[in-house]
Amino acid sequence: MNELSLIAAIRKWSTPKTAAPGVVKGIGDDCAIIRPRANEDLLFTTDFVIEDVHFTRATQTGIDTGWKALARGLSDIAAMGGDARYALVSLALAPWCCHNYVRDLYQGFNKLAGLHCVQIIGGDVSKTEKLSIDVIVIGSTPRGKALRRDGAKPGDVIYVSGALGRAAAKGYKDRPIPRLELGRKLRGKATSCMDLSDGLAMDLHRLAVESGVAAELDGPLPSAPKATLEHALFGGEDYELLCTLPPGRRAPRELTRVGLIVEGKPGRVTLAGESLQPRGWDPLA
Amino acid sequence: MNELSLIAAIRKWSTPKTAAPGVVKGIGDDCAIIRPRANEDLLFTTDFVIEDVHFTRATQTGIDTGWKALARGLSDIAAMGGDARYALVSLALAPWCCHNYVRDLYQGFNKLAGLHCVQIIGGDVSKTEKLSIDVIVIGSTPRGKALRRDGAKPGDVIYVSGALGRAAAKGYKDRPIPRLELGRKLRGKATSCMDLSDGLAMDLHRLAVESGVAAELDGPLPSAPKATLEHALFGGEDYELLCTLPPGRRAPRELTRVGLIVEGKPGRVTLAGESLQPRGWDPLA
Repeated sequence: MNELSLIAAIRKWSTPKTAAPGVVKGIGDDCAIIRPRANEDLLFTTDFVIEDVHFTRATQTGIDTGWKALARGLSDIAAMGGDARYALVSLALAPWCCHNYVRDLYQGFNKLAGLHCVQIIGGDVSKTEKLSIDVIVIGSTPRGKALRRDGAKPGDVIYVSGALGRAAAKGYKDRPIPRLELGRKLRGKATSCMDLSDGLAMDLHRLAVESGVAAELDGPLPSAPKATLEHALFGGEDYELLCTLPPGRRAPRELTRVGLIVEGKPGRVTLAGESLQPRGWDPLA
Repeated sequence: MNELSLIAAIRKWSTPKTAAPGVVKGIGDDCAIIRPRANEDLLFTTDFVIEDVHFTRATQTGIDTGWKALARGLSDIAAMGGDARYALVSLALAPWCCHNYVRDLYQGFNKLAGLHCVQIIGGDVSKTEKLSIDVIVIGSTPRGKALRRDGAKPGDVIYVSGALGRAAAKGYKDRPIPRLELGRKLRGKATSCMDLSDGLAMDLHRLAVESGVAAELDGPLPSAPKATLEHALFGGEDYELLCTLPPGRRAPRELTRVGLIVEGKPGRVTLAGESLQPRGWDPLA
């Protein structure tokens, strides 16, 4: 594999049957070119998936890994209430990565991208010791409508989607489903929103810090089958949504109430009255 | 160093004195939010800088490495005739990377970003064996005005900026200067443009492939001091601009004529009548 032949193959694997709206130029130039629509804001997120940190070759196929790498970014777009639009993929290949493995990665990207009309418009290729994939996702929302972490107010009700601790209980081997539809539904309704990538305890702490509030978990947590309380609070990679709604606002049926935003030390999170440490999945630990 | 404390430090290092135009939300949420202006196209590029592939700890400081990592992306924006606007930085830290080294990287990013009013609006942090930095740069041009690789026509004159083989002759240790001002000057004038990242022979081949033309190098090449012909043709990382202008069009003074676009097998490049192989710096070699 040299750079020219790999890029030619990637270009073939990345070309959709029909180009996504707004793509002036995809792969094949120094930059991709996008033409924004009137009255939209653009969202940008980037996430690494690294061998032996986020996955191991022994337990995940290339397709699984490609899926997960894109899912992380799509989940960030979901958390802002956005539509996912475009992606760039940077690959630093390990010595063991053969042509067919890279093809499998792109199959994984494409399976998930196809479900959400996301087009891969660029990227970079290089080499290193451990396979490293950095996926950049670009999304959009109507102007001023992005959901943020910093809008929660005392009295707001805290909700989560789905079941917590699912990924941890399954040994982080599943293919996460980004909650894009739910995120869009929360636009104009939720006062704050983020995705659960590092566990409820850590992520709720972050949301509370950004909003300058404290949080009380009081309800029973909607735990996944076989998930322990440890999994539900501190397990990462669930890619569910964590959000707050004003008191009295009816929540979409995908959400379960888990607590209340209160006044207090910004970032303090309690469970049944006891302080929770902001620990969880830490990519640097 | 844990993720929370590192991100807090990065946020401090990345906060500019005044926010760049269009930044609705920078670091601190699931995504950065950008508000596009009317009548602009947006440009996206992403480039890895990886330990022992693009640099070594022994010969480059953290400041040098940060500078180079951002310079690669800015050079891609220059190649499209764009203004550089925003950057996202993904860091996968090696075990040896201490807090002060990461601070030095951000000093390097900031030194160069400050020269071009680029704001760092997001990123990701993780860990791996060898330090890996993926920098995403977002730029803009007036609508429809981006310079591309695919517009060269037979009869066009081929130019390069600056001196070739500079980085190779210096052992790839200098701080590259992205040619953003020259790129903007070429808007509406050049029929094609790209940056020289992998060497003239490889990059001119790529431009000729995209444009469906052949290229003849005939002039003396403007080589850097101490650069051999091998350096000038096949040395990477010069980050100068390669472009074509219609016959008779006056070239900006930064450019030197090196050849002509001709009809022929797409991608074929000759030097004084002899075929040149499309080889050069290959990040997969």
